[in-house]
Amino acid sequence: MERNICVFQDFLTQAHRERIDAAARAAKMHVRYFATGQFEEAKEHLQHCEVLYAQSPQLLRAAPPTLRWYCTSSAGVDLYCRNDGIFANPDCLLSNSNTYGVTIAEHVVMVALMLLRRMPDYLDSIQNHIWAPPLPVRSIRGCEVTILGTGDIGCHVAQRMRSMGAAKIIGLSRSGKSREAVYDALYPIGDLDAVLCETELLVMALPDTAQTRGMLDRRRIALLPRQALVINVGRGTAIEQEALADALNEGRLSGAALDVAVPEPLPADNPLWTAKNLILTPHISGNMTLGYTCDANVEMFCTDLANYAAGRPLVHLVDRARGY
Amino acid sequence: MERNICVFQDFLTQAHRERIDAAARAAKMHVRYFATGQFEEAKEHLQHCEVLYAQSPQLLRAAPPTLRWYCTSSAGVDLYCRNDGIFANPDCLLSNSNTYGVTIAEHVVMVALMLLRRMPDYLDSIQNHIWAPPLPVRSIRGCEVTILGTGDIGCHVAQRMRSMGAAKIIGLSRSGKSREAVYDALYPIGDLDAVLCETELLVMALPDTAQTRGMLDRRRIALLPRQALVINVGRGTAIEQEALADALNEGRLSGAALDVAVPEPLPADNPLWTAKNLILTPHISGNMTLGYTCDANVEMFCTDLANYAAGRPLVHLVDRARGY
Repeated sequence: MERNICVFQDFLTQAHRERIDAAARAAKMHVRYFATGQFEEAKEHLQHCEVLYAQSPQLLRAAPPTLRWYCTSSAGVDLYCRNDGIFANPDCLLSNSNTYGVTIAEHVVMVALMLLRRMPDYLDSIQNHIWAPPLPVRSIRGCEVTILGTGDIGCHVAQRMRSMGAAKIIGLSRSGKSREAVYDALYPIGDLDAVLCETELLVMALPDTAQTRGMLDRRRIALLPRQALVINVGRGTAIEQEALADALNEGRLSGAALDVAVPEPLPADNPLWTAKNLILTPHISGNMTLGYTCDANVEMFCTDLANYAAGRPLVHLVDRARGY
Repeated sequence: MERNICVFQDFLTQAHRERIDAAARAAKMHVRYFATGQFEEAKEHLQHCEVLYAQSPQLLRAAPPTLRWYCTSSAGVDLYCRNDGIFANPDCLLSNSNTYGVTIAEHVVMVALMLLRRMPDYLDSIQNHIWAPPLPVRSIRGCEVTILGTGDIGCHVAQRMRSMGAAKIIGLSRSGKSREAVYDALYPIGDLDAVLCETELLVMALPDTAQTRGMLDRRRIALLPRQALVINVGRGTAIEQEALADALNEGRLSGAALDVAVPEPLPADNPLWTAKNLILTPHISGNMTLGYTCDANVEMFCTDLANYAAGRPLVHLVDRARGY
């Protein structure tokens, strides 16, 4: 019997398809490609597939109980861990693609520098064609950085902050551990309150789980020093948005940059759009917008396809109960 | 007879004054401090001084022929090398302060990422409260960077581009040499045309001299690939501004970031303000806006004050004929 793979992706180049074709041949499987606009065709073919490489909860819901592995091209898997019957096969493997470290870390460096160097103020005067006088600015050099979430993204951020001379880089994670030795100190999330008091730049790169929801709430925002800056590239649910907007507008917090929000898209009348010293971007730090990200994503799927075919464990397997 | 130093600076903290006081004591000299608003008092005292630490062509013009050393806290010295009698003493030593590498390199990284990651487009939609869809972006990782001017600023830029994964970093300078080994290749300025054809990110950090004026003219702008980005943090005179605006507006160049312009301040009706994909900032990449810059500046003056008192050559001596 033919063993089939369904790929439903918009970002693939001809070179990417050739790479996947070769991996499928090696796995003795057949692969067919679909993109937006071919949802019905993809759904029909999916009924005969055991593997799906996509980023579509809608398509996953249409999968048969014979689907054995769903590889999402996203890093976040919150949509797939809600235990609401999205998997017809309760034992279906779920893997994700942590290929966003480079592009998201560059976004973090960009907005960190924009906040430290007063770009929200300068952009105002630039817009009005005013050659403004110099404002006092701050630097990544000598900065005390705290990174919430020490996965692929957190480590890429830490490396860049280090090379630009950050004074201290603290990582916080559930386990208090990290695969990469790029932090000056590592603590479990339980130590968050104590760490916040000494944080100048807080970078949040957390998955959405029961534990992370509302983590930066009104009480914890008040623990941050007045000159602190908050950057969130994880999930919007981790921050109590109204409390953050209040702190910014009342000058109890120096600035923030959010690439994620609740809800997305953010309605035009949401108070976040006009909060003081807030750089808001429409969830664009990651995505398949960088060539490197796309190449690495395909490579990651092909590596795990070889593992899958050989009966070895998937490198990027997600613990669906844990949520990441 | 008393040997006197006149300090005319706005940025000094109490700690900076104590550091200068100690250096003056060691040099067996007396120091007095003035700031904006005390110009007349500074001018009067200056008549009895042999050393001036300032950044004021106006005050320098009021100095007596007995002034022996003028230390400017700026890096650029074009205002002091025009041979128009600004020095009453033709043999007066001139030294400058190359302490802007860190802050200017952070500005360069910031605007490079803003251009590569399409921030001019996103800022437009953000301003209109529109949650825009993702755009294709580019990365410093894999980028081919050319740096015009391999001094303090150029080297700090190169180090940061390297640590973020730039594919190739070429430095160009008058001599084709650099004190720091941070470039993949170094060429003399004469090779500029050939290098421009293969440049993705062009960073200009040149002094204003007869050789650098108009260096990036209409012909050379046309040599740059269509996807190229131009960043200027040196002097505005190095670029033919009208040609740059034309190339941007006609899509023959992907983007630019100018922190310097001709003239400064730039009039509100100058076409640069509205050029496409141009990030214009009001000469704020350097300045005494960063604590690190101020500390390093004072340290540099104090080091050379010891050299001066001991009759040793100044480390930061400028060749007034050469212009840097």
